[in-house]
Amino acid sequence: MQNTLHNQPLANNHISVDCVVLGFDGEQLKVLLLKRMGEEHGEVFHDMKLPGSLIYMDEDLDEAAARVLNELTGMKNVNLVQFKAFGSNNRTKDPKDVHWLERAMKQKVERIVTVAYLSLIKIDRALGKGLEDYQARWVSLHELQSLTLAFDHNLIIREALTYVRQHVEFNQSALFDLLPRKFTAAQLRSLYEVIYGRRIDVRNFHKKIAMMEYIVPLEEKEQGVAHRAARYYRFDKKLYNKQRVKRNG
Amino acid sequence: MQNTLHNQPLANNHISVDCVVLGFDGEQLKVLLLKRMGEEHGEVFHDMKLPGSLIYMDEDLDEAAARVLNELTGMKNVNLVQFKAFGSNNRTKDPKDVHWLERAMKQKVERIVTVAYLSLIKIDRALGKGLEDYQARWVSLHELQSLTLAFDHNLIIREALTYVRQHVEFNQSALFDLLPRKFTAAQLRSLYEVIYGRRIDVRNFHKKIAMMEYIVPLEEKEQGVAHRAARYYRFDKKLYNKQRVKRNG
Repeated sequence: MQNTLHNQPLANNHISVDCVVLGFDGEQLKVLLLKRMGEEHGEVFHDMKLPGSLIYMDEDLDEAAARVLNELTGMKNVNLVQFKAFGSNNRTKDPKDVHWLERAMKQKVERIVTVAYLSLIKIDRALGKGLEDYQARWVSLHELQSLTLAFDHNLIIREALTYVRQHVEFNQSALFDLLPRKFTAAQLRSLYEVIYGRRIDVRNFHKKIAMMEYIVPLEEKEQGVAHRAARYYRFDKKLYNKQRVKRNG
Repeated sequence: MQNTLHNQPLANNHISVDCVVLGFDGEQLKVLLLKRMGEEHGEVFHDMKLPGSLIYMDEDLDEAAARVLNELTGMKNVNLVQFKAFGSNNRTKDPKDVHWLERAMKQKVERIVTVAYLSLIKIDRALGKGLEDYQARWVSLHELQSLTLAFDHNLIIREALTYVRQHVEFNQSALFDLLPRKFTAAQLRSLYEVIYGRRIDVRNFHKKIAMMEYIVPLEEKEQGVAHRAARYYRFDKKLYNKQRVKRNG
């Protein structure tokens, strides 16, 4: 929640936005976190947090989320969707968090309601560039299990994943935001597996793909791989929407 | 956003909850509103608003929503779901609203972020009792079109309806929260019509119902009606969930 670089007036010190940016690198689901350094009882500590900050007086929540993500990670034009507000008193139960924020904000901090945003993106090489300069890093969900993040950010990420699972159940098209434009069946299967947290049978999965008209096989195959080159597929959003309308119509 | 009756400390004067309670009376979709009286430029005005209020220091957002709805309408044990936070600067653009709130809160009010909750319920006779004592009233969506509510409450209701439409598209079971336990095909069709805002062909609709295993015809029929007595149906949630799992499995 750093706002130290700016002199714009804050709306107040009670309302923030936090961004859960989930990315898939072809194997794992990862969340974008910022490194945080603080001091408590005279000792320096290092941990991590979601990109987030208090909102300014002249901006809407959506604007604040886009601005904060850009300032803290350099990312631009990211599709952010508001998914939940978090307002428990327990959010600021750890004095470490309160002290850190009060130092950064140079004012007394009490209770903060944060409005959480979600983005699903594909992690490719271009995206990795420059993140280091921002003290930002992709952290796998597996690694996350052993990390205690600032404030209630572990909870916010868990709720984001619940939202994604529910959303994907009803609208598969969100899945394909996480994949490259061309993807293999193995990549799509891995993505299902990490999102639902369970193994999926390879043979059944291939049958399932064959039944989905909107997952279109390409003539192209993987190049320069040690194993047998796999076919690429693409997601056809128009076909997908047509089929959905038919099903619900 | 009345909190005048209480002496509990507010979290702050920037965060509120608002409840959109949508009900269906068998013919129309209605929203529960409170009458508001205020004074501006020395003249008394009357309008309406959603049941909402600032949150207390010791309560979570969900708790605040349940408490506020109960205090302002007498309703208890209502299933409230958080659906969106509204934080635009424009929320308090009308001085009338700001002055009204400042008088009620006895303090300066600036920008307020509100977390909006939604509830879908069936309007029956029991529910109507006592609402008058609370200055609360069911207002049909049709009537709402010509009303300008306090703050951005017209917008909040529009967004609630968008949420309902999207939600119902993916999960029909929410629809049946709006219907009585036993309902006629005509009632279900009316509900579809008001939610989607378009006419539905009677004959096609009967065919559609016949195909939905989870809409179970009962032996019972309407009693004491002038027209031909219609059959009652009930919604079978277990069958519905089974079918959903099969479709997505």
